[in-house]
Amino acid sequence: MESAGPRKDVGNRMIYADANGSLPLLPEVVNYLSTRIPSSLYGNPNAIHSLGSKIKSGMERSRRIASEILGSNSNQLIWTSGASEGISTVLQNILLPKNESRRIIVSSPIEHAAVMASLNYYVKVWGYELQLIPTSTDGIIDFNWLENFSKENAKQIALVTCMGVNNETGVLQPWEKIRDLTNQLGLTYFCDTTQIIGRVPFHFKESGLKWAMASGHKLGALPGSGFLLVQDPTKFTPFIWGGGQENGHRGGTQNYVGSETLAIALQTLPEKLKKIPDHLEWRKKMEAQYPKEAIVIGQKLDRLPGTSLVGIPGLHGQGIQIELESQDIFVTTSAACSDNEPATSKVLRAMQIDDVLGRSVVRVSLPLSSNENEYMTIAKAMTAAHAKLNKIKAY
Amino acid sequence: MESAGPRKDVGNRMIYADANGSLPLLPEVVNYLSTRIPSSLYGNPNAIHSLGSKIKSGMERSRRIASEILGSNSNQLIWTSGASEGISTVLQNILLPKNESRRIIVSSPIEHAAVMASLNYYVKVWGYELQLIPTSTDGIIDFNWLENFSKENAKQIALVTCMGVNNETGVLQPWEKIRDLTNQLGLTYFCDTTQIIGRVPFHFKESGLKWAMASGHKLGALPGSGFLLVQDPTKFTPFIWGGGQENGHRGGTQNYVGSETLAIALQTLPEKLKKIPDHLEWRKKMEAQYPKEAIVIGQKLDRLPGTSLVGIPGLHGQGIQIELESQDIFVTTSAACSDNEPATSKVLRAMQIDDVLGRSVVRVSLPLSSNENEYMTIAKAMTAAHAKLNKIKAY
Repeated sequence: MESAGPRKDVGNRMIYADANGSLPLLPEVVNYLSTRIPSSLYGNPNAIHSLGSKIKSGMERSRRIASEILGSNSNQLIWTSGASEGISTVLQNILLPKNESRRIIVSSPIEHAAVMASLNYYVKVWGYELQLIPTSTDGIIDFNWLENFSKENAKQIALVTCMGVNNETGVLQPWEKIRDLTNQLGLTYFCDTTQIIGRVPFHFKESGLKWAMASGHKLGALPGSGFLLVQDPTKFTPFIWGGGQENGHRGGTQNYVGSETLAIALQTLPEKLKKIPDHLEWRKKMEAQYPKEAIVIGQKLDRLPGTSLVGIPGLHGQGIQIELESQDIFVTTSAACSDNEPATSKVLRAMQIDDVLGRSVVRVSLPLSSNENEYMTIAKAMTAAHAKLNKIKAY
Repeated sequence: MESAGPRKDVGNRMIYADANGSLPLLPEVVNYLSTRIPSSLYGNPNAIHSLGSKIKSGMERSRRIASEILGSNSNQLIWTSGASEGISTVLQNILLPKNESRRIIVSSPIEHAAVMASLNYYVKVWGYELQLIPTSTDGIIDFNWLENFSKENAKQIALVTCMGVNNETGVLQPWEKIRDLTNQLGLTYFCDTTQIIGRVPFHFKESGLKWAMASGHKLGALPGSGFLLVQDPTKFTPFIWGGGQENGHRGGTQNYVGSETLAIALQTLPEKLKKIPDHLEWRKKMEAQYPKEAIVIGQKLDRLPGTSLVGIPGLHGQGIQIELESQDIFVTTSAACSDNEPATSKVLRAMQIDDVLGRSVVRVSLPLSSNENEYMTIAKAMTAAHAKLNKIKAY
């Protein structure tokens, strides 16, 4: 009988630099699962038998651990299948049923596809109008434009959305200023926090956000796990309906194993976040050693510690990616989800990056568990790739 | 540091009779995960690097294996987080945006909460009218009533929904007749297949259903996994939006580990389904040995092989459940999701089962991996529980 899973293992010495796409299971999670999987503790966490109670107790303990680390109350944390579900859930809460007097959605043009594809649906099927915020070639949205537009159109705006951090460039967006502006104008602000949580310090209550979401697979927990934080669960409409699970907020037997791994993964965060200053320094050194032709997008702006979106105009990003991979360094050409497009990514096009640079970029996104040596190895490999590809180009 | 998971293991000799609620991981799945978990094959299956390709290749192989066993094409199978997501997805596809001339939803009153809670939302928020199909105390819907009602109101009906098998009684519903009737009248039929798949033979193409769905945790795969089968994916609107995953049909990085375990679990099905005649015989013997006061709901009807919903009027179901558990037999009082209600379940109330019987029921639902001895052990334990509880009651 054919085996269901992947066929081969990969080498041990690899440098995994696709953290913004997905993170391999943390060693702590692998360790946990090595005893968890054969434990026989499986069943319906909502059943009354003692097996169900034990499973539920583990799931609720995971909820307490996770919400403490995330700065939320336990009852504000809803287990989901990941950030995309969380995003679709919140957008439907905001946009349906439609309030006919508020037809405008204001969004950054550099949102993740989970937001943008959803907004396109609301435009196409529900007749909303989409207004995009101008964004600099450095990758930051124009807050002044947003402020003026919002003030002028406050009564027609159904939603303002702008991610906390862009997944391709790693550039931090002014979400706190947008939160204050929208609060002041009585507008609804949705902030996609997928690339904030686990990457930079985040405290839900202090954030003042109405919702926040994350994916387990970006935190080193099992894929298919995730959570949604809701400021006021009493004003929340479920998206997936079911038998009263998650306080009636999200139907379906919970992915309790996934939730347990999320708690394990989140427990490792506080220590890792302390190393952010080191990462910023290591990245600076790495970027200083890139070939002189290299352009780092958003270099002058505050960016996620391990992220470096770098292009060498004239080369092909995929060529660089393959060269790095031949040295066991795993990067992507931009957002992993749209990797199959050889053209400039939608995000970079929205930033008016030209194709010569746009097609040449690779995204280095190192996890917080990385060390200086890995940054330096990438810098060297980038130089070698440049030299080699440039030579080929010259023929 | 506090551990995230459940605290204790359970005994080895237990009889797990809550298969309709959830199934423990199959031994084949535990075995698979014991090498899969430490394999380092984690990352974004949609990334272009070779790690992504390897993960994707395993996921697509799982899709081929699963769809072959389920009788669908690979491109008809969409990975989800479970059946509840599948149900909410399909109902939204059918009911939004609303067609004002078709306001009536016809549903059985014995649907799972994932359907019923969702329908209540469409009634409350979107103004649909809900018409429930009368259902016998045996637990089968009145097909003649449905036929008449549908013919009389064909132009006003937006949806007819009736599950394939009821999760509490195990009673098979006449879904094939409903499919033919609705086809003939040009109506949309939604059949919740959650308790069909993995329990009785099912072939998607031969079923003629437009959609089918299942949960991994009911098949012995990892919780948080699942799939939705769609007859015509070109007429499908995503529910969770994202970066083009699942052919653009379901956003979010896939739960590829969950999908791999689903393929493993489904591979064990064909052999298990061959044993259905044995299970029917063993159940017959078990039910014959129940105390003479016991009433098996739907006993004369076609039921899922391992399911026996049994009540002893005057006793409390929870008392019986606890007695059985003291002998390491795990049953529930009715549907696991609503277990916390000590009253007659909604499904039994819809069947006009009185409270004296309704409060006394326990649901035995044995998986297809069970043997004759387990059925007989349950029968004996039921007799012992009856004797003991009856004695207490007499004081």
